[in-house]
Amino acid sequence: MIERIAILGTGLLGTSVGLALRAAGYRGPITGWNRSPDGAHTALTMGAIDSIASDPIQAAKDSQLTLLSVPIYATLDLMEQLSPVLGPDQLVTDVGSTKGQITAAAGRLFNSQDRAAFLPGHPMAGKERGGADLGDANLFRGAVWLFTDDPAWERSASASALVADWRRWVVAIGSRTIDIDPMRHDKLVAWVSHLPQFVATALSALLEDEVGEAPELKDVGGRALREMTRLGSSPYSMWRDIALTNTDAVEAALFALEQRLAYIRENLRTPELRDEFERANNFRRE
Amino acid sequence: MIERIAILGTGLLGTSVGLALRAAGYRGPITGWNRSPDGAHTALTMGAIDSIASDPIQAAKDSQLTLLSVPIYATLDLMEQLSPVLGPDQLVTDVGSTKGQITAAAGRLFNSQDRAAFLPGHPMAGKERGGADLGDANLFRGAVWLFTDDPAWERSASASALVADWRRWVVAIGSRTIDIDPMRHDKLVAWVSHLPQFVATALSALLEDEVGEAPELKDVGGRALREMTRLGSSPYSMWRDIALTNTDAVEAALFALEQRLAYIRENLRTPELRDEFERANNFRRE
Repeated sequence: MIERIAILGTGLLGTSVGLALRAAGYRGPITGWNRSPDGAHTALTMGAIDSIASDPIQAAKDSQLTLLSVPIYATLDLMEQLSPVLGPDQLVTDVGSTKGQITAAAGRLFNSQDRAAFLPGHPMAGKERGGADLGDANLFRGAVWLFTDDPAWERSASASALVADWRRWVVAIGSRTIDIDPMRHDKLVAWVSHLPQFVATALSALLEDEVGEAPELKDVGGRALREMTRLGSSPYSMWRDIALTNTDAVEAALFALEQRLAYIRENLRTPELRDEFERANNFRRE
Repeated sequence: MIERIAILGTGLLGTSVGLALRAAGYRGPITGWNRSPDGAHTALTMGAIDSIASDPIQAAKDSQLTLLSVPIYATLDLMEQLSPVLGPDQLVTDVGSTKGQITAAAGRLFNSQDRAAFLPGHPMAGKERGGADLGDANLFRGAVWLFTDDPAWERSASASALVADWRRWVVAIGSRTIDIDPMRHDKLVAWVSHLPQFVATALSALLEDEVGEAPELKDVGGRALREMTRLGSSPYSMWRDIALTNTDAVEAALFALEQRLAYIRENLRTPELRDEFERANNFRRE
């Protein structure tokens, strides 16, 4: 069972996983590495990790479970570096927001009898800004944690046992797991996660141009406007790799919403507007 | 000073005003009328009003302040009916979400020396659904309450005193008042209130078509999706009159957002995406 953990990337997600594991009763050592030392130091102070690793590769070699909680391209880089130095008694998993490229790399670089396992994961939890200081032991409570595991992968028995154990920990920290095909995953999150983000960014950027000069007028929108633009705070750095690794699906979702807005615009005075509200009401009904 | 109040329309806003006035120390009688008797009965049970009026016109005649808290076209209808029967010792005010037509009617039908005053108002507070049962004494706390009063109107001294007193009650129930030109009001709310609503409706309706068949997948979006689609619950009946009385400004805002989404879609792989995120970040910065 998992007794030594390395968290590579102690931003919001990595730090929250460390805190959540501790809260759920995990007692083994957790070492943490972060590209900027400040983030690792914060995670250490908060108790999410109990040592700071200077070398991420060595930290992974010394662990049974390595969690990659860095942006997508950094995850792909680390996968290349870790594949040759880890063995069949080790598991690597990640939290990347797109799963097509990562799952393909996992099949190529991991998940054979003589190699470490790689379980591609994606917790549907986060905040509009990142950073270890926002880390939260309850971040994953009630959230869905998606896995794009491939049933065709033939892992060693010990690697399979680690995979099963990590799935139990994910449930222990409060998440509901769903297994999904990686291509279906990327299309789904384009609709339910990436589209809402890019809409909030577009709306916030537009309003910055229209009413940004008159800060008192921002208050006029009240709670509804605050909610619809909260994700506008998200930094480009959190979304760049998503835009680059899920471009087609996000383009399709954005185009569909443009069409939908045009349809509403052309029907402000017709009964079709009623139908559109009813469709929206249905989405929100339990 | 205001000692007798009629609330015509005891939905969410009318009921909340009654509850808020009581909480702020208003002691005079409040009579309430509602098109459907159920809503009036609920408001009475909740203590928002202390009697139910069977005739809205008579209730207004018997009051110093009449609050019209009904949809926009119903407000315009009541204004026509009330104008000839009220006098210069009386004030009518409203909560309508668009102010162009209502303010024009207020100048035509009220606000001369021998007529009742009409103060056009718009509290920027609400919920995604209406109804007396959602009434809340704290609904207006921290909210902006817009007025589109016209300095050119020449009211009687007693009507002016009632206007000043109502403005004090609006502050007493927790709102910040802003005076704004009615045309500017309608353009502003098209951006900060109507656009967010129609975006949420479009996004919810689109997602109902795309993932509505798989309810478990709605959970995948988590808090971000819930927030971005909360307003999707709003019924057509709350928005029909807004779409009909602010069509040009809403059309312009929707078209601008369509352009903005297309710009993001075309720049998912370019540095322009970074600039768009930064503009959005600026909007959210204090």
